[in-house]
Amino acid sequence: MCKTHVLSVSASKAPFEKTMIERRQLRPDDVSIDIKFSGICHSDIHSAHGDWAGGIFPMVPGHEISGIVKAVGQKVTKFAVGDRVGVGCYVDSCGECEYCLRGEEQHCSKGNVATYNSLDYDGNPTYGGYGQNIVVTERFVVHIPDRMELDVASPLLCAGITTYSPLKRWKAGPGKKVAILGMGGLGHIAIQFAHAMGAEVSVLSRGKDKENEALSFGADHYFSTINTETFNMLAGRFDLILNTVSAPIDVDVYLSLLRVDGTLINVGAPAEPSQYNVFSLIMSRRSIAGSLVGGLLETQEMLDFAAVHGIKPQIEIIRADQVDEAYERVLRSDVRYRFVIDISTL
Amino acid sequence: MCKTHVLSVSASKAPFEKTMIERRQLRPDDVSIDIKFSGICHSDIHSAHGDWAGGIFPMVPGHEISGIVKAVGQKVTKFAVGDRVGVGCYVDSCGECEYCLRGEEQHCSKGNVATYNSLDYDGNPTYGGYGQNIVVTERFVVHIPDRMELDVASPLLCAGITTYSPLKRWKAGPGKKVAILGMGGLGHIAIQFAHAMGAEVSVLSRGKDKENEALSFGADHYFSTINTETFNMLAGRFDLILNTVSAPIDVDVYLSLLRVDGTLINVGAPAEPSQYNVFSLIMSRRSIAGSLVGGLLETQEMLDFAAVHGIKPQIEIIRADQVDEAYERVLRSDVRYRFVIDISTL
Repeated sequence: MCKTHVLSVSASKAPFEKTMIERRQLRPDDVSIDIKFSGICHSDIHSAHGDWAGGIFPMVPGHEISGIVKAVGQKVTKFAVGDRVGVGCYVDSCGECEYCLRGEEQHCSKGNVATYNSLDYDGNPTYGGYGQNIVVTERFVVHIPDRMELDVASPLLCAGITTYSPLKRWKAGPGKKVAILGMGGLGHIAIQFAHAMGAEVSVLSRGKDKENEALSFGADHYFSTINTETFNMLAGRFDLILNTVSAPIDVDVYLSLLRVDGTLINVGAPAEPSQYNVFSLIMSRRSIAGSLVGGLLETQEMLDFAAVHGIKPQIEIIRADQVDEAYERVLRSDVRYRFVIDISTL
Repeated sequence: MCKTHVLSVSASKAPFEKTMIERRQLRPDDVSIDIKFSGICHSDIHSAHGDWAGGIFPMVPGHEISGIVKAVGQKVTKFAVGDRVGVGCYVDSCGECEYCLRGEEQHCSKGNVATYNSLDYDGNPTYGGYGQNIVVTERFVVHIPDRMELDVASPLLCAGITTYSPLKRWKAGPGKKVAILGMGGLGHIAIQFAHAMGAEVSVLSRGKDKENEALSFGADHYFSTINTETFNMLAGRFDLILNTVSAPIDVDVYLSLLRVDGTLINVGAPAEPSQYNVFSLIMSRRSIAGSLVGGLLETQEMLDFAAVHGIKPQIEIIRADQVDEAYERVLRSDVRYRFVIDISTL
């Protein structure tokens, strides 16, 4: 066992405090990682605030983890001490079901183990990346490419794969018109991926204040959704709309912007139900879909793709004592575009 | 111009009466068809009852038309006098847009012309198949295969293509588990198509009284949706659910029956909005889709497929003076499974 300092909340909506937990003894296939940076995802806030059922407290959030390998178990083959590595949303899965076998551990039939706020297969709660060290089976660790900085890599482990995976699956690429709905932590990375994949990228966002940044990320067009004329102008235009907004949207209005066979893909998850009229789907054979992060192979592919194409989350690095304040700022949408905790300040 | 007897309603919800209308003078690419049978589709009732906006009265419903070619224009090449032919939901489209050019006239960018309750490109209202004759441009006429009876062919022109097209597009076939939700005019044909395509077919229907018929149509399993245990038992089971029900359903409950990457395809269109929770889509990367009949090429393919595989709508033939009563029976779901008007009784 190895004691390590972490930031934890003792109960739903409690402030963060510096505490100590124990990480498990290294198993033969485990990698021990000294964490350098940990991104703050909106779902960290939902979990720490008990917005979703079943919160396990005390809780150490964090599933956008980058760091350096400190030690490896005797059967570890993919990693060596000193390697630059990352960990995302999951730390284990059955490894045997059809989904695990094809590299889609996020859909593990047995039920996978989330990086925090979850129970490991041994029955112990999992604790996430707001801390100095984590121990993870090597199958759930990815290499961070040489040319990518560790702080920039962090948000890619959740926000990056969450947007890369559906853009690739639904074939964003040359000749495709893709709209990114919402320009926050997910959206600003999605613009970069869709652009690098060769699609014509439009951003649909409320105000006009993010327009210049959107264009700098690779967007071809920027439309304000406050202007209702936007919706008439863009009717039937897009092959894909990637909805990164966590609040409910007027689904029928956005479906009307899709061409025949177009898809509205949801990666943001509002707690409230959404409503649609079946005619909006039938008349142009449209679809509404959802997508959940991605598997480990695809996560590695995404990091490599991001490194080659110079894709970088735009981050604001914070100290460990600023996490409560950062949560408040995320809830006010006052972040451009992702907070990353510098774990050396813990 | 050619006068012809029809069944028409003078206003929303008025009873049918035998009246006379004029069909246009044969144009060079027109086919004049003596109608033998005309199926009754639920959308005929919605239209004649003014349930949908914009009803044009007097109205002659009917878009499941089978008959014999009576005359052809001088430039017609595909049809000759005496041919056994069918007409479905549309009688014209622009012929030039990307959708028309790839045989998907149902999605014509200019807006196609429906068989009735629509305005033709010359500005005149269209009148449908509840009558003795119709004149249609040859591009919108299909051949009825030799081995298929004309009365049986009628419902395939709408109910058939409406179910065949999405089953084919979403790859119902060997190794796929397909559920047909609702066993009415559409559902009972969908079972036969999905079975003939090689899928494992389950029927989800309210009572148990249609079970034997479902199995005789080729279903492998039949489940009553009244039994709530059904939904636990079938969780994560299907690749596709084809929803043929026109009333609202509990979308989240049916999404829970889909595997990873499964799709709930709507071909029935309730007027009321539907509701879903985004989590139901995200957690297993599921989709909700809609599909609208099919193009002319695919309609011909569907008829040929049905002939080869012995697929037959189960019909009840009625006289022209029974249409009002048949409408009432459709609204009570008292039909197994499609009414077809014998036009010789008009």
